[in-house]
Amino acid sequence: MLKLDYANMLSDRVGEHGLDADHLDPRGEEAAGVAALTRKLSSTRGKGWERWRDLHREPMRSEHVRPIKQYVESHRGKFDNLVVLGIGGSALGNIALQSALNPATYNLIEPGAASKGQRTGSATRSALPRIFVVDNVDPAYFGGVLNYVLAADPTLERTLFNVISKSGETAETAAQFMVIRELLKARGRKGSDHVVACTDPAKGTMRQICNQEGYFTLPVPDGVGGRFSVLSPVGLFSAAMCGIDIEGLLDGASQMDEVCSREDMSKNPAATLAYLLVELGQSKGKVNHVMMPYCNAMYLLADWYRQLWAESLGKKSDLTGETVYAGFTPIKALGTTDQHSQVQLYREGPNDKVLGLVELAEEGWKSMPGGVGDANVQIPTGLNVEAIRYLEGKSMAALLHAEKRATEYALVESQRPNFTITFPKLDAVHVGQFITLWEMVTAYAGLMLNIDAYDQPAVELGKQATFGLMGRAGYEKHLKAVEQTLAATGYVI
Amino acid sequence: MLKLDYANMLSDRVGEHGLDADHLDPRGEEAAGVAALTRKLSSTRGKGWERWRDLHREPMRSEHVRPIKQYVESHRGKFDNLVVLGIGGSALGNIALQSALNPATYNLIEPGAASKGQRTGSATRSALPRIFVVDNVDPAYFGGVLNYVLAADPTLERTLFNVISKSGETAETAAQFMVIRELLKARGRKGSDHVVACTDPAKGTMRQICNQEGYFTLPVPDGVGGRFSVLSPVGLFSAAMCGIDIEGLLDGASQMDEVCSREDMSKNPAATLAYLLVELGQSKGKVNHVMMPYCNAMYLLADWYRQLWAESLGKKSDLTGETVYAGFTPIKALGTTDQHSQVQLYREGPNDKVLGLVELAEEGWKSMPGGVGDANVQIPTGLNVEAIRYLEGKSMAALLHAEKRATEYALVESQRPNFTITFPKLDAVHVGQFITLWEMVTAYAGLMLNIDAYDQPAVELGKQATFGLMGRAGYEKHLKAVEQTLAATGYVI
Repeated sequence: MLKLDYANMLSDRVGEHGLDADHLDPRGEEAAGVAALTRKLSSTRGKGWERWRDLHREPMRSEHVRPIKQYVESHRGKFDNLVVLGIGGSALGNIALQSALNPATYNLIEPGAASKGQRTGSATRSALPRIFVVDNVDPAYFGGVLNYVLAADPTLERTLFNVISKSGETAETAAQFMVIRELLKARGRKGSDHVVACTDPAKGTMRQICNQEGYFTLPVPDGVGGRFSVLSPVGLFSAAMCGIDIEGLLDGASQMDEVCSREDMSKNPAATLAYLLVELGQSKGKVNHVMMPYCNAMYLLADWYRQLWAESLGKKSDLTGETVYAGFTPIKALGTTDQHSQVQLYREGPNDKVLGLVELAEEGWKSMPGGVGDANVQIPTGLNVEAIRYLEGKSMAALLHAEKRATEYALVESQRPNFTITFPKLDAVHVGQFITLWEMVTAYAGLMLNIDAYDQPAVELGKQATFGLMGRAGYEKHLKAVEQTLAATGYVI
Repeated sequence: MLKLDYANMLSDRVGEHGLDADHLDPRGEEAAGVAALTRKLSSTRGKGWERWRDLHREPMRSEHVRPIKQYVESHRGKFDNLVVLGIGGSALGNIALQSALNPATYNLIEPGAASKGQRTGSATRSALPRIFVVDNVDPAYFGGVLNYVLAADPTLERTLFNVISKSGETAETAAQFMVIRELLKARGRKGSDHVVACTDPAKGTMRQICNQEGYFTLPVPDGVGGRFSVLSPVGLFSAAMCGIDIEGLLDGASQMDEVCSREDMSKNPAATLAYLLVELGQSKGKVNHVMMPYCNAMYLLADWYRQLWAESLGKKSDLTGETVYAGFTPIKALGTTDQHSQVQLYREGPNDKVLGLVELAEEGWKSMPGGVGDANVQIPTGLNVEAIRYLEGKSMAALLHAEKRATEYALVESQRPNFTITFPKLDAVHVGQFITLWEMVTAYAGLMLNIDAYDQPAVELGKQATFGLMGRAGYEKHLKAVEQTLAATGYVI
């Protein structure tokens, strides 16, 4: 299992900037309060917007995994390119899984070439498509990816598009979809052979289009919000297409769900982490939360976390209607890289952060192929230059670990609260655990802040203004409001 | 020229969360104070750690550009792979230039293939190497890149390594260098044919190694700190190797330098921006600074900015020795993508941010190839589904612009201060302007905060602790301190 070490969030380590360990006393009032939340969460699981908690359970598990596996198996070797069209919760999970569980050079490995350095078990890229998750309408980016795909596969015979949109009305995904539908048409391709849609199983604009065009569809289940959907077909389909062990992801989710259902807070990492983060935020002003993996493959997990954390907890009103401007600002960083960019600020700037360090145990690197001759990348002997001789014969994993520990130490010396999550191994099971851990921390934090962690009311106004600016009928008053509010001024250089 | 619009930082627009426009009165005390700083900066330019201001001027300009151009021209077509080894200021600028000025699919385009979608003028990838900037010691990442390069070029005949380290003692870069030196040796390659080093021209460990091994070297000039070095050979060499117009970068720097030397604050974007950001930080609690380009290619410019802003201004003590914990936390975001991830928080969470929106003018997209049939990517007509019909026949650039303007409007409605920087065109000249603008904003902000913007004292402790943990002689007491401070506790789940 993942390990959480929270010693550096306590006052023993970081003085007045940490929390007194008394608060965690299992017989204390706080622990009883947290236990009550655990009971509450188990009474609401699977209901309303908490259906995400059951994605790894039957019957949803089989309902999702079976058709995905059938599709993947019956289409093995048929596609060289998989282009995912989605944004926000319909993209960040896909990107995170790909980045965590496939090598950084995945797309560079030619289909058919030997796949050295690949971490997808026995699968080879010869049977796996390149993947592009195009989560923006930047025309140079979207157009550049399409041009690349068209150069590699001019007839689009070997290209699959995975459109992800519950409603079909998200402007970005709708626009992308309209472009690729036309591209396929222009090349005489049948859309139903080249589009897989993840969408509402029963209603909505995309559902209507899918029925009309005969696309193969997978459900975005009711009661599973975008930012909680990575372990539904939204995230699982593209992962499975690229050789990722989706059963492993769900197994990991199940394991972490169990651990995070424990009433004893001292044995429940989600409850403990949520309690400490909320308390340090509210009583010590630590409102910025940095996630800093010491592992490139985990870096984009932080983008997935950023949405979960920001959109769930960033709320103007609490459940009583009081204005609270709740929330914490998630920030991503990468070790060791950001030691040479952000750590100066993290140690000497405003003490307004909690740093979440994430690492892969030194043993864990050994099961990740990717090294040169050795999975750990040995630093050779023989250069024999005094100032850097101490590096000779060590492994890069050892250096990475020393840097992480040294940074942790330096942060404590500056009284900057931090915690560490350790992966024993970087595989689907542990990534599933990590995802579920943070979803559970979010659920707890929402209760502690007494806000609705499942809505996103502030996103509406921008959508309506976009409709107005794009000339959609019925939104003229929004266009007018934008023009009045942002009328030209002289404050321009 | 780039355009700065700061109207949304003023109280006219965002109420008590903005600054009153009176503060900007050209006859006022504040403007006089800022003008005095401008005079001060012009008296210190080119001296001490402000030599970066002269990188675009003679004699440094020619001293740098001439040998780079000679090398690039005499080695054209000789390399398929360029691997840059560096970290922090020796990597972030390289990555930013590459990402801003070459297409996202640059590395995927096979040498020899037609280079559709490429933005490097008449150059084709047939003469340009793939680029990998490996700014971490993650063994799976570093090893994965090396394995990929070795698979493509088993004898390393067509691979060039660019090692960037002023001292040669940065542990990460030293370790990487030791690995590639051995790889070249094992394949019987002459290091001097395959390594270009950017390092101190006169002294230090890397200088000593370069002299011994006969490497071609380019200077990291004295008085130019890592985070201010992108327009020196540190950033220019790899850019030039990949077809980027380095003279254009320096021309843009020169243009922006001139504008940012104007004593009249209302005509000087660096002075105005620094003043507003520092004032909003100090008097209104806006201590988090988000940089949010609406353009994928500009996204990694934000990583370069993050180092500049965090490491320069994040300081415990001011110049009088008083403890101030100065600094602002830089955060990167991407439009429209992060509208579906962060904007909920930015509108409804704590009002502790200033958002810097960066955009490419709608006309500017037209000169960026990358579209499908049309540089702007047209959204086709003919789907004819009511809810998304308003998108038909529009361009993706128009949608991107509408989303940006809608978000700006929504932020103002929530009284969240923000500004917009507009690129008329995304090319080397304007990227050079952008870099120099932010370097000048940083120099001004350092003076306004009365801190040393050019040191990074807090990075030392972690380095020493790393030496201790890695067993370097003379650092035993640091090892002991780490072990004592981070002794195991029971606060683990």
